[in-house]
Amino acid sequence: VTTVASETALLSLLGEQPADHGLPAVFYGADDVHRLDLERIWRSSWVFAAHSCELRNQGDATVLQFGADSFILVRGGEDVVRAFRNTCRHRGSRILDRPATGLKALVCPYHQWTYSTSGRLLGCGGMERERTIQRESLGLHEVRVVEVGGLLFLAAGDDAPSIEQARSELERALRPQGLESAKVAARRTYRVRANWKLIWENNRECWHCHVGHPEYIRSNFDTALPSDPELGRRTSEINGNLSALGLELDHDEAGLAEFPTPDRWWSATRTPTTAGFVSESLDGRAVAPLMGDYAEADVGVLRARMLPNFWCHASSDHAVTTRLLPLGPGLTQVQVTWLVDAAATKGRDYELSRLLPFWQSTSEQDWTLCERAQRGVLDAGYEPGPLSPGREYNVIALLDWYRRALGNTSQSS
Amino acid sequence: VTTVASETALLSLLGEQPADHGLPAVFYGADDVHRLDLERIWRSSWVFAAHSCELRNQGDATVLQFGADSFILVRGGEDVVRAFRNTCRHRGSRILDRPATGLKALVCPYHQWTYSTSGRLLGCGGMERERTIQRESLGLHEVRVVEVGGLLFLAAGDDAPSIEQARSELERALRPQGLESAKVAARRTYRVRANWKLIWENNRECWHCHVGHPEYIRSNFDTALPSDPELGRRTSEINGNLSALGLELDHDEAGLAEFPTPDRWWSATRTPTTAGFVSESLDGRAVAPLMGDYAEADVGVLRARMLPNFWCHASSDHAVTTRLLPLGPGLTQVQVTWLVDAAATKGRDYELSRLLPFWQSTSEQDWTLCERAQRGVLDAGYEPGPLSPGREYNVIALLDWYRRALGNTSQSS
Amino acid sequence: VTTVASETALLSLLGEQPADHGLPAVFYGADDVHRLDLERIWRSSWVFAAHSCELRNQGDATVLQFGADSFILVRGGEDVVRAFRNTCRHRGSRILDRPATGLKALVCPYHQWTYSTSGRLLGCGGMERERTIQRESLGLHEVRVVEVGGLLFLAAGDDAPSIEQARSELERALRPQGLESAKVAARRTYRVRANWKLIWENNRECWHCHVGHPEYIRSNFDTALPSDPELGRRTSEINGNLSALGLELDHDEAGLAEFPTPDRWWSATRTPTTAGFVSESLDGRAVAPLMGDYAEADVGVLRARMLPNFWCHASSDHAVTTRLLPLGPGLTQVQVTWLVDAAATKGRDYELSRLLPFWQSTSEQDWTLCERAQRGVLDAGYEPGPLSPGREYNVIALLDWYRRALGNTSQSS
Repeated sequence: VTTVASETALLSLLGEQPADHGLPAVFYGADDVHRLDLERIWRSSWVFAAHSCELRNQGDATVLQFGADSFILVRGGEDVVRAFRNTCRHRGSRILDRPATGLKALVCPYHQWTYSTSGRLLGCGGMERERTIQRESLGLHEVRVVEVGGLLFLAAGDDAPSIEQARSELERALRPQGLESAKVAARRTYRVRANWKLIWENNRECWHCHVGHPEYIRSNFDTALPSDPELGRRTSEINGNLSALGLELDHDEAGLAEFPTPDRWWSATRTPTTAGFVSESLDGRAVAPLMGDYAEADVGVLRARMLPNFWCHASSDHAVTTRLLPLGPGLTQVQVTWLVDAAATKGRDYELSRLLPFWQSTSEQDWTLCERAQRGVLDAGYEPGPLSPGREYNVIALLDWYRRALGNTSQSS
Repeated sequence: VTTVASETALLSLLGEQPADHGLPAVFYGADDVHRLDLERIWRSSWVFAAHSCELRNQGDATVLQFGADSFILVRGGEDVVRAFRNTCRHRGSRILDRPATGLKALVCPYHQWTYSTSGRLLGCGGMERERTIQRESLGLHEVRVVEVGGLLFLAAGDDAPSIEQARSELERALRPQGLESAKVAARRTYRVRANWKLIWENNRECWHCHVGHPEYIRSNFDTALPSDPELGRRTSEINGNLSALGLELDHDEAGLAEFPTPDRWWSATRTPTTAGFVSESLDGRAVAPLMGDYAEADVGVLRARMLPNFWCHASSDHAVTTRLLPLGPGLTQVQVTWLVDAAATKGRDYELSRLLPFWQSTSEQDWTLCERAQRGVLDAGYEPGPLSPGREYNVIALLDWYRRALGNTSQSS
Repeated sequence: VTTVASETALLSLLGEQPADHGLPAVFYGADDVHRLDLERIWRSSWVFAAHSCELRNQGDATVLQFGADSFILVRGGEDVVRAFRNTCRHRGSRILDRPATGLKALVCPYHQWTYSTSGRLLGCGGMERERTIQRESLGLHEVRVVEVGGLLFLAAGDDAPSIEQARSELERALRPQGLESAKVAARRTYRVRANWKLIWENNRECWHCHVGHPEYIRSNFDTALPSDPELGRRTSEINGNLSALGLELDHDEAGLAEFPTPDRWWSATRTPTTAGFVSESLDGRAVAPLMGDYAEADVGVLRARMLPNFWCHASSDHAVTTRLLPLGPGLTQVQVTWLVDAAATKGRDYELSRLLPFWQSTSEQDWTLCERAQRGVLDAGYEPGPLSPGREYNVIALLDWYRRALGNTSQSS
């Protein structure tokens, strides 16, 4: 547990830092800060857990773990997904180790205490007849979970902000993508030796893209000049395709959409792709059948994000989600998932060799940069440097969000 | 070193816990508790080290390590086994790394300081002529070791309780087994990612056996109902075979023998096996020649235990001992050893493929359960739950023993 | 950071220790001591970094890391080697991961901030036009580096003592060896699980050589008696060969040269070899062409040392350097490098199978002894023992140096 003294010192150090500079090293490597991050941010936020389609049927379950918190997510009666702490009320045993299907109940493998999929204690081997225990007080501890356009978010603590506005905005943006009727085509799970905030800082600017992401920069206008005539031409062209769906591009400038902002820890924007790119693939061509409501392939890319651990890039034919989970101050699990329409068949409708390379390369290039940044910020010679207002505005905004979240004063709802 | 403050807080937390509930998480995972466990229990108890038959001849030696304490056990002059701290009095080098035979003396491999097998400094390269040192004050630090019916127990600290009553009771029970004239037929050493107390809690109840140990439950009455007519029949049958040896079953109820008790941190009981099981083997048939004084195979199973780190199951033809050593708050080395009569020859008198599976399966099933329990009790959502008076009476007794041992107020002698 | 309280307690404990005994365990294993060692010794000393010949050409660079300090060494304009902290002034990224050649500038791989080889910020993507930053204040942090007879030493902190006298004495001794015109023929890098001081203690006595180094002891008089007639004979013989170079043996006694001394943390001595040994090779014969100014092979062995991390043994045909870098209280990286004349060709002029075995065996024998010592001094039963005035005089002197260095009162210049 973080002592009051060190917490005060840390928050004070954070407060003294100029807004347009990076953070002091301690925020990327100290155990005390990591505990504070877990407590103030990860346990007080809506955390992306899984895709609805991973729990398609009643009795499907999966597991989410970050810090010392493990949760079971299970689709139970009335087709509702619920989440419970993954520890038996008898002797604490971990109940579920990995995804499962066909569960009628949650049964602890140690002494077979049995809970319904809504967490109620159904049986404890008759122990309620031996001693004064009340079964109703020994159900699994439930935590909140919400479905948002095919994505499942979980709130470990009671003090997470309202997700209603985020849910409403994200659902509207995600609706045409059809993630509820998608399936997981592939997944890569990484152990990135970097603090989770460095991974976000990397995500929130594209200054590093020119040299760092030779494949990625060909597909978009993130690093284009505002005066680029192609930007206007492509925006008109794609908007033409989108109008039938009642959609339009809502981020057609060069550069990255502004995120986070003081009143938004979530966002979704639709962005134009460059000529020839109807999908984020190496050659720009589609790599899978159209998803959701799309009737045209050339509809730009839908990008969504939610702090502290989710972003995705969705083309008309596939979506790629990224989920961060902190394993330690200098270690983050990153899960990258490729989704396609549930009706698509591997080998006939799509090939992993065409589906994966674009985001696998781009992701792995980022992890390398983040790990090198981690080594550098923990160096005794590191001092926080100045950030560029023109190219790192979102990093500045991210650090502002972090300062407020850690001080726990103003996460807006 | 544990500070007084945290020790007081820990003992107070322990004292507040209801006797019929599990322990708070900190007792299974905190470094401070682990240090306290080492100091109050492991260094203040008789710890099972090795079998006498592993040091059969003069000059045989072995090594025992737990926490930061390493010891040499050596059979020296007058056929006595002695134990010494495994660090040279010159520059501290570890003296012995692994079991050895034929030692005339203990020689430090760094500068050849040489000690007798009773620990006396015999030579230090003539350094006693260079400066004022007294060889008699530079012998190896000796610790107490006792042989009990073929088992060697060591007391690291001076404050271990008297072992005389335990020795007397265990020797009487072990005498017919002939462990002194046994040999090690096989050994499996595990690194179990669980606190040592969780391994004991698992050992002290058989509620988990029905589902957890399909092989084990066939051989005994641990989970039988008291009214089971077979229990009475087998008890009579086996007692008939035992009477020639002047022995009889002393645990013929269903359920586990009560252990520990307020006045016993050791115990030995002889328990009936089910029909068809003359040995704890997969098919119930003997897997090796008779040991010790036994003239009949069907004599039940002798079970012995000593806290904090020993238990065994001995059939008429083989014995299986289990030794725990703590490597950290969440890591325990477990050594399982199969013994047969020293005169038995592998391939002729016994086969490992028949000797091992019963206890290897049962042991490994337990380690899996214990590791899952460890993950669960360290979960942020864990809270100690109620224990069953009918099936977990020994777990309740174990936690009572632990509370007293940690408070260091009443280990009986 | 070490708190004042623990620092005071540690220094007081160190001060109470008798000068002729080993150190208490805490000095070999505690994190607090390790931090103090890094701060008072490693960051306040001249640390051997690399050989000049590893940075032979302009644009050659290498990396040195110990503790949390990483440095780039680069040969830049005017043929000068400079050293910089290896962290970008922008967002802290590690700039260089491994040795490089042909560098015109130091370019951070994250956002391409570009620094000259003298550390000046040349470009930051035009950011100086966006906001008030002064390029001249954002150069790489430089640290001092000096070349001494083909060896590069770096001072991480500002408080390292003057190296002038050491440089002058070592250069005079190293001059005939020609290390500037050597090349690296082979290198072995070890992770030795021992505190760096135990490795020095091992290096500073040859009591362990008789049993520990059967190959090494054949080549020298380190363990000979002063009355050995061969010692005088070989001294005369070798001095005859050396006189043409204006050199002579300066350590011709039996036993090791005295090092360190109260006024020297460096030393270089030339020592006779035994009959038949013109080189430190298994058979005593030369294993490579003559180096530097030598015209005769039989010239003894030049040994140089500098605390806290360098020693070498140089024969007429090859030199072997050893560099220590602390990775933790119980872990040291040791790099052993074999150098031969730069003009020698592998396979024609030398073979690794003849060049390496002598020092590879001897080194690895030492690491085994040091690791066993580390395990022993961390044992709960360890207590510092008496040192031999006749055979461990240099260990006593080393511990005296350490006490003074840690107290930071009297490192002489």
